[in-house]
Amino acid sequence: MAYEIPERLKKLQSYQPVTEVYQVRLDANESFLDLPENIRKDVLEAIRQVEFHRYPDPEARELCQCFGEFFHIPSTLITAGNGSDELISLIIQSFLIPGESMVTVSPDFSMYEFYAQAAGVKVQVLEKQDMQLCAEDLIQKVRECSAGLLIFSNPCNPTALKLEREDVLKVVREIDALVVVDEAYMDFSEGSVLNEVENYTNLIVLKTCSKAFGMAAIRLGFAAANRDITGVLKAVKSPYNVNSLTQAAGCAVLKHQDYLRECTEKIREATAELYTGLKKIEEKKERIRKIYPTSTNFIYIEIEGAKSLFEALKKEGISVRFMNGYLRICAGNHKENKAVLQAVEKIL
Amino acid sequence: MAYEIPERLKKLQSYQPVTEVYQVRLDANESFLDLPENIRKDVLEAIRQVEFHRYPDPEARELCQCFGEFFHIPSTLITAGNGSDELISLIIQSFLIPGESMVTVSPDFSMYEFYAQAAGVKVQVLEKQDMQLCAEDLIQKVRECSAGLLIFSNPCNPTALKLEREDVLKVVREIDALVVVDEAYMDFSEGSVLNEVENYTNLIVLKTCSKAFGMAAIRLGFAAANRDITGVLKAVKSPYNVNSLTQAAGCAVLKHQDYLRECTEKIREATAELYTGLKKIEEKKERIRKIYPTSTNFIYIEIEGAKSLFEALKKEGISVRFMNGYLRICAGNHKENKAVLQAVEKIL
Repeated sequence: MAYEIPERLKKLQSYQPVTEVYQVRLDANESFLDLPENIRKDVLEAIRQVEFHRYPDPEARELCQCFGEFFHIPSTLITAGNGSDELISLIIQSFLIPGESMVTVSPDFSMYEFYAQAAGVKVQVLEKQDMQLCAEDLIQKVRECSAGLLIFSNPCNPTALKLEREDVLKVVREIDALVVVDEAYMDFSEGSVLNEVENYTNLIVLKTCSKAFGMAAIRLGFAAANRDITGVLKAVKSPYNVNSLTQAAGCAVLKHQDYLRECTEKIREATAELYTGLKKIEEKKERIRKIYPTSTNFIYIEIEGAKSLFEALKKEGISVRFMNGYLRICAGNHKENKAVLQAVEKIL
Repeated sequence: MAYEIPERLKKLQSYQPVTEVYQVRLDANESFLDLPENIRKDVLEAIRQVEFHRYPDPEARELCQCFGEFFHIPSTLITAGNGSDELISLIIQSFLIPGESMVTVSPDFSMYEFYAQAAGVKVQVLEKQDMQLCAEDLIQKVRECSAGLLIFSNPCNPTALKLEREDVLKVVREIDALVVVDEAYMDFSEGSVLNEVENYTNLIVLKTCSKAFGMAAIRLGFAAANRDITGVLKAVKSPYNVNSLTQAAGCAVLKHQDYLRECTEKIREATAELYTGLKKIEEKKERIRKIYPTSTNFIYIEIEGAKSLFEALKKEGISVRFMNGYLRICAGNHKENKAVLQAVEKIL
């Protein structure tokens, strides 16, 4: 009589972090801007005041207040999470029961499926036509599958394309499933539905501090929804899910509203620079099949021999993301953009 | 056609944090020792070096190394978590499928049941005889229920009682279920099975930095298990579950091994002081029915009119924990212990 790890778990592979050191890291859609000295000082001062031996505020009240002030929504509609990841996992596990269906799209952020599988939820995938999401297709798919939940990123990771605000709201209105819109990259674009959460009974909007705000290290995400849904999220989450250091750092940074807007603008400009550079290469190199327009901080490219280009870039000390025949390249600073553009041109 | 929040979620109540300010807080089993200035300086220096715009190390390698060095176990057998909470939730959700059974005991840490319910797992509760756990009862209960998992805290929160090391290992050997031993309070006592994880295929030991190490604020817990189980845990966890600030702070504090041992000793002494004081009151006051011996940093007391004592203590600015006719009082510093002892004597 001995314990056996269940078969379904034996075959799982742990997430393989990039452990090689690359000089130019454009693979994780991070911001290229680290905290400036003055804000780092504020963060350290806030952390200096933490009572290390006490549990964090379970509701992260000051943090939700700062977030609400930045985005002009009431803090009572906000739940903070240990990254959006925790919130995605929590929403899927709580609002669906095992065996129920959830609709996601392809391509999209791979973790939706990961957490759905962990929760025993059936995943129904809508394959996108020409990569562009379309409200009618989403509505039809959710109805067809009698799905209880629809989740997608907008703008989309990895296509960088956006579904217009009116189309998102149409989907929310026309289906009776819960709609989770992951706006991790919406700070780079227009068309957020964040300020609509009070008006719908079936809308959750996810935001993150890991992209435009440049704080991937602290793992801080937010879910915004109406009062009833927010009440559920607060009841099902781990009581002390966001630690005191992240709460302190998040407050300190979110108060620098002008700085955060400036960062966002700089990243937008860097993305435009990378896009323009890639379009120029496209004119000369036939292997590039399509460069998608971007509403995010990265570019999605269909390219012949994407894998070999990906490997060759690594040899040049540049890491980008390879996904099934496509490359996803995140905008870096001017020097990093120049490095990746030169390398791509040389290799092709 | 409108979305309706599922009935099972509507009735849930969110965790109600203590929002009143109490001068003496002995309700959460926290350490009464905040970080001293020199270690706080190390923590801040480590955090100063964090690249805020980059994601954390997914495997928290340096952190697991520091933890392993402290407890003399290989870091390859360790998984770090966002508090033990995340690990408890993850283990239950991953190793069991909905409908399978898990055995826990009563009274014990309430979050085991909370996470089991979230995962759709059936909870089978072993009611303790005289509060004392017993290996035979555990073995029998797990067999009776054909449970896939057994979880309990040792020493127990809230009874403060301990199951001896040999008894724990006997349980691990004699059942074919996965055994999760939550040793959150074992640093205050002898009898850890942490260094046995390599020898068993069905043992996971949980440790936390929130109790003896006085770092509840940073939410840091660890699971130790053999290579196969550790591989599963790393595959099912959120890739970036432990943020960079917690990783940096955890490493900085865990390197101060002498300090941590000193803290543990001070808390032990304070617990003995509180225990002795309560025993003296017991001699004079008939309402105290039983004071349990303690292997932890808190005391569990059966007392007539526990609720009214609890309320009266709050009015004196002292918060303790009330649980079904019992009080759980955490050890504070000398002044806090004196305050609670005087108040208890006065009120009774």
